[in-house]
Amino acid sequence: RTRHQIAVIPGDGIGREVVPAAISVLEAAGRRHGFELAWKEYDWSCERYARTGQMMPEDGLDQLRPSDAIFLGAVGYPGVPDHVSLWGLLLPIRRGFAQYACVRPLKLLPGVTTPLAGRAAKDIDLVVVRENNEGEYSKMGGRIYEGTDDELVIQEAVFTRRGVDRILAYAFELAGRRRGHVTSATKSNGIFHSMPFWDERFALMAARHPGVRTAQYHIDILSAHFVQHPDWFDVVVASNLFGDILSDLGAAIAGSIGVAASGNVNPERTAPSMFEPTHGSAPDIAGKGIANPVAQVWSGAMMLEHLGHPEAARDVERAIEAVLSDPATRTRDLGGRATTREVADALAQAL
Amino acid sequence: RTRHQIAVIPGDGIGREVVPAAISVLEAAGRRHGFELAWKEYDWSCERYARTGQMMPEDGLDQLRPSDAIFLGAVGYPGVPDHVSLWGLLLPIRRGFAQYACVRPLKLLPGVTTPLAGRAAKDIDLVVVRENNEGEYSKMGGRIYEGTDDELVIQEAVFTRRGVDRILAYAFELAGRRRGHVTSATKSNGIFHSMPFWDERFALMAARHPGVRTAQYHIDILSAHFVQHPDWFDVVVASNLFGDILSDLGAAIAGSIGVAASGNVNPERTAPSMFEPTHGSAPDIAGKGIANPVAQVWSGAMMLEHLGHPEAARDVERAIEAVLSDPATRTRDLGGRATTREVADALAQAL
Ligand SMILES: CC(C)[C@H](C(=O)O)[C@@H](O)C(=O)O
Ligand SMILES: CC(C)[C@H](C(=O)O)[C@@H](O)C(=O)O
Repeated sequence: RTRHQIAVIPGDGIGREVVPAAISVLEAAGRRHGFELAWKEYDWSCERYARTGQMMPEDGLDQLRPSDAIFLGAVGYPGVPDHVSLWGLLLPIRRGFAQYACVRPLKLLPGVTTPLAGRAAKDIDLVVVRENNEGEYSKMGGRIYEGTDDELVIQEAVFTRRGVDRILAYAFELAGRRRGHVTSATKSNGIFHSMPFWDERFALMAARHPGVRTAQYHIDILSAHFVQHPDWFDVVVASNLFGDILSDLGAAIAGSIGVAASGNVNPERTAPSMFEPTHGSAPDIAGKGIANPVAQVWSGAMMLEHLGHPEAARDVERAIEAVLSDPATRTRDLGGRATTREVADALAQAL
Repeated sequence: RTRHQIAVIPGDGIGREVVPAAISVLEAAGRRHGFELAWKEYDWSCERYARTGQMMPEDGLDQLRPSDAIFLGAVGYPGVPDHVSLWGLLLPIRRGFAQYACVRPLKLLPGVTTPLAGRAAKDIDLVVVRENNEGEYSKMGGRIYEGTDDELVIQEAVFTRRGVDRILAYAFELAGRRRGHVTSATKSNGIFHSMPFWDERFALMAARHPGVRTAQYHIDILSAHFVQHPDWFDVVVASNLFGDILSDLGAAIAGSIGVAASGNVNPERTAPSMFEPTHGSAPDIAGKGIANPVAQVWSGAMMLEHLGHPEAARDVERAIEAVLSDPATRTRDLGGRATTREVADALAQAL
């Protein structure tokens, strides 16, 4: 039996509830498909930060490196500034392990209500492929005349040819395995240097993939189109910031951020990839056992696919669809009354 | 009778159709309310660029300066790169005249269908106040290793204390005249320098306006909330880029970009303000006389208010609501069959 070494970081808040729930589902899938998952847990979190002053130890990345994948819950806690919790854990992992493709499938699932009028499952089935390592998320820049009326801040975004090309290539290849269509998010009409460069590279990549159809919109009107014409989209490729916006907006039109999964993928497998739900640690409902585990489980399915078990992944996805179809096994955010545990048990059962 | 000098730039495409249509409506309002509008037209456009190599003459801003306001249609034409049409006309005017507040009211109007399920007019009535002069829209930055595999681009965004404070102040004052609530769009969890600075200034401005309630969301989840909870918002204040995105997204949830108005306002009146629809030049339907003039007319109403005629502005807004309530006077984009001219005539009539 194949055995995969998985680093688990439940993190904070509901991360600690949905991660164990999802693990039980993934183990059920492993039993059915003949592979084993060996979990190694790390308590890296805002809670750890409060205790030790660090989100993760200095050698955190080295500790994670031997694993086959990382399974993350959510980090964040009121009182811990984001630049600590994120730049102290999430972003260094995404970058340190060259997880340059943030892949976020957005699909209207059964039992989930989209806020859009007259839209059915067939209308909302897209993947946002977000550049995850460079671009607008940057520590470059700074402040001058601090504390005076002349104070000003410069924020720099960095786009490299290598960084842009590899995410575009990923998107085109993914589209080739889906419906063969890629949309590029740009803003070359307002953002003078980076976005025209992005457009140039997109045009070249499109020329190299004649079998894939393309479209391109400025981020402002693209956001509008997500709401007005979600059925126009198959794969949407975007910079770090634009992809962040589009994947939350996409999760909203797909009905719930409680079911949205994501993978931070290193496609060349030079380091482990990381799988985590799109939602945060939700401190307001943490500890009550009512959080929706579906996003975490779905992220787990993406992890199984990445580990070489596409059939197990499909099975988990089918289990999600089956379990969500039954009102008795939906959590509160979806109008049901099931607990985190009950949903997980139903999912394991369905497998 | 008061007489206002208005510079008119119809621009390209449907701009040339909706601007004359709107002018006839605003003149009707002037007749009723006892003021006169003297229009001076400028042919600045992509068409002019094709002829002369310039969107506007060197002394363009000087020519506009004596006017009381600028009434713009839309610029843009296939084949003319955006960095020409926009950085050669629109953006220099916004900046050169310190039109730092881009004000975009978003309201679900009668006869307009929102793509959101179960939402009525009372749920969608907000104003996006967008910083219009600095921030992410910047020529600062550049390229190195051009044409090689090492090519990289740096794009800088600039946020000044003065620039941030004045847009925040504008938003708080506007909220004081509306429902007393301001939401700030941020991304201080991902964008390291500029957004934490924005948050700091927002907190200080909020402390100075104890009568106004506030909220603050990261742009990703804020975009999701626009779709899921449009009724949460009164005034939404945002940087140049975030405001651009939110105003198009807001126009989409309010049912149509064909009715979305905007003002580029210089609140201190040290130079003329400019009023223009949010939509573009729509070359695909230009020349057919079918473009919806409502966004242009509504922008005109904002101009009348700015010129000191709030009652005339309210009258024009009421005329818009009345005319849109009748299916016979809706353009195609709203499911009707009326022409641009017919809608304008109905609006003038309703006044
Ligand atoms: C045309 C473009 C530069 C402009 C912008 O992004 O500001 C437009 O989208 C707008 O919103 O007025
Ligand atoms: C928490 C934050 C830094 C993060 C991001 O913006 O990347 C989150 O919103 C996400 O989308 O994963």
